[in-house]
Amino acid sequence: MSLSPDRTVAELRELQELTGDENGAQRVAWTDTWEHARQWLREKVVPTGAEEEVDEAGNQWFTLPGDSDRALLLGGHIDSVPNGGWLDGCLNVLAALEVLRRIAEHGTPPLTVRLVNWADEEGARFGRSLFGSSAAAGSMSDQDELRERHDADGIALPDALAAHGVDLDHALDARRQLESAVAYLELHIEQGPVLESLDLPLGVVLGTFGVERHLVIWRGQAAHAGSTPMDQRRDALAAAAKLALEIRPIAAEVGDGAVCTSGNVVCRPGIVTSVVETAEQLLDQRHLDAAKLARLLELAQEASRRFAREEDVELGWQRIWNIEPIPFDDRLIELADESIREVAGTSHRLPSGPLHDAAEVARAGVPTVMLFVQSLRGLSHTKLEDTKEEHLELSVEAFDRLTTKALQAFE
Amino acid sequence: MSLSPDRTVAELRELQELTGDENGAQRVAWTDTWEHARQWLREKVVPTGAEEEVDEAGNQWFTLPGDSDRALLLGGHIDSVPNGGWLDGCLNVLAALEVLRRIAEHGTPPLTVRLVNWADEEGARFGRSLFGSSAAAGSMSDQDELRERHDADGIALPDALAAHGVDLDHALDARRQLESAVAYLELHIEQGPVLESLDLPLGVVLGTFGVERHLVIWRGQAAHAGSTPMDQRRDALAAAAKLALEIRPIAAEVGDGAVCTSGNVVCRPGIVTSVVETAEQLLDQRHLDAAKLARLLELAQEASRRFAREEDVELGWQRIWNIEPIPFDDRLIELADESIREVAGTSHRLPSGPLHDAAEVARAGVPTVMLFVQSLRGLSHTKLEDTKEEHLELSVEAFDRLTTKALQAFE
Repeated sequence: MSLSPDRTVAELRELQELTGDENGAQRVAWTDTWEHARQWLREKVVPTGAEEEVDEAGNQWFTLPGDSDRALLLGGHIDSVPNGGWLDGCLNVLAALEVLRRIAEHGTPPLTVRLVNWADEEGARFGRSLFGSSAAAGSMSDQDELRERHDADGIALPDALAAHGVDLDHALDARRQLESAVAYLELHIEQGPVLESLDLPLGVVLGTFGVERHLVIWRGQAAHAGSTPMDQRRDALAAAAKLALEIRPIAAEVGDGAVCTSGNVVCRPGIVTSVVETAEQLLDQRHLDAAKLARLLELAQEASRRFAREEDVELGWQRIWNIEPIPFDDRLIELADESIREVAGTSHRLPSGPLHDAAEVARAGVPTVMLFVQSLRGLSHTKLEDTKEEHLELSVEAFDRLTTKALQAFE
Repeated sequence: MSLSPDRTVAELRELQELTGDENGAQRVAWTDTWEHARQWLREKVVPTGAEEEVDEAGNQWFTLPGDSDRALLLGGHIDSVPNGGWLDGCLNVLAALEVLRRIAEHGTPPLTVRLVNWADEEGARFGRSLFGSSAAAGSMSDQDELRERHDADGIALPDALAAHGVDLDHALDARRQLESAVAYLELHIEQGPVLESLDLPLGVVLGTFGVERHLVIWRGQAAHAGSTPMDQRRDALAAAAKLALEIRPIAAEVGDGAVCTSGNVVCRPGIVTSVVETAEQLLDQRHLDAAKLARLLELAQEASRRFAREEDVELGWQRIWNIEPIPFDDRLIELADESIREVAGTSHRLPSGPLHDAAEVARAGVPTVMLFVQSLRGLSHTKLEDTKEEHLELSVEAFDRLTTKALQAFE
């Protein structure tokens, strides 16, 4: 039996039929529908002979023993956001399943091969993404905070996890899963417009962006819109507007794929008859290079101080979150590039804007790479998320070749 | 007995003591506290001999008959916003009371003199300002809509009014009150920073600004903050930011006191990980000259179309509300100017940004003028609202002189 990429497409549709509705995928982690999807996956894997284990963080592992205990990991996540797409996360679970079938048919592989279905990559219910992979990577340092989290219905995170057999206090014991890992491979939809704009089906991911995420707070003076002359205003929105525009030349100056986004401005009092007194502005900056990320932030902070002076408003910066760039493995990047060129003729190297489980595995020191397959219109986290079937099939082929090359390279 | 401007200041403090608390004035229209203030006013007026009448819109009239039935009106409003200041509205009720006392002491005036305490200028409870004056002016055309309004506790406007003896269906019968009016005079705090910045106590109001109030809706495309290159974004916030800044050169170009304000921008999805798809922006533009107001709007619309093209976003304009400029009476402006120069040496002419009951009376064709007295820091609608006592006293003197001049001019 050889690889059947069309079966992966059929199984993606089967999964959507089983766990989605007219609004999209509904496989939110720590729900019955998610458990249903995991059971469905379990049954799909049985014929390969791979042995199942669910670890202390709820990650579902399927292990096909090889000549060596050293393990090549193929990972994805079957959980989705509410009203999600049919590909995000589960594409790689099912591509890896297909690869596992092909390897199992050909006898004992040189390395142990393990398919991992990470638990709660999306964080849709409790706002904590990369749950299972960060536990396995040992980077989950927020357990005290997680104990206090509740979902929209008031259910505590530890209680929801317990209902699926996971004890938050022991989640970090999942770390032992990576002890034998020699490499980690992940295929994912791009969730962005780059490959489509280049008319290419596949790309190699160089790593995940470092992120600097801040709340910028501008405080001017509320004043009557009718009685306050233009030159006597201290307009917080004007300062925020300048920064919302300035992040574009800043990204251009730093270059190399830099992205900066102002995703919200909340104005107070926020009424038609008053100059804005306070503007709270979200700022998200990303780069694959740590020094350039630092430069993006420095330039935005310099500009903000200038705007605060110009507009005579007070300025405050609050860091919401940050993460360093996580570069993927050079050797695996080369192998991924080769694999893509073999199946598609042309490859392209690009950073990943979104984080992925692969970033957690790479942070833990396991050589890692990802493949991206083109997303139509760059859409994800919506039922409109889509990829051409021919591209999905090519992605399964490229992932299979990458697996074969990695098995040889890390043998 | 001559005019006692210090008594006006003392009575302002007495009223605040009676109807305010540690958060400020609490004389919201159609409440017990407001009724209490009206009763207090009623008792204050008794010694003047002026006769009270409450009209069909709840306006409280005190009439001192003159040699002629033709009436000079002195108006203000004793209602306040919640947590309001000690001067907004009631300053003129009490200044007019003091003038009424002075006139009554000197025998029968040549014209009938009427003090009017307008009902619900602020619209604080039901969001409908200038209630009583618009009924008297005959410009209240939204009665059907008012019938459906409710306060924050779910009480319907007609029920709240009925509790104070006002039948909404007959409110417009108050129109007869203006039939005998020959002129209308109103003193008010500036509620803006202009007189303070000029170091002048008093100014003559040229009229109330015309207002164009719009919601500008920008619609781009939500896209992942990490995976969407800068040059592939359709950022609705960027377009809104450009307009928030462009209204300043537009106001400068049109000039003559033009003001433009963007009081709010609501972003959707409004999250840190997404380019803004939709930005809903409030825009308020004001001018004393109708042609220039139209030009302000035209320039903003032109600019917005340019920004929509530049940012590749869709654009929609929705008018929220507009009102034409309402110029005050030239003859009364001259008399007001004289009165101010007599008591303060220097006068200044300025438009009113906020609307006032005077605008409704002027719209009805009654020659009208207002005096402004300096506001400290331009603040109002807050307990921080304040004016120097010496300026309050000067304002009562100027208002008295204006009343005398108007009685002569319109005799």
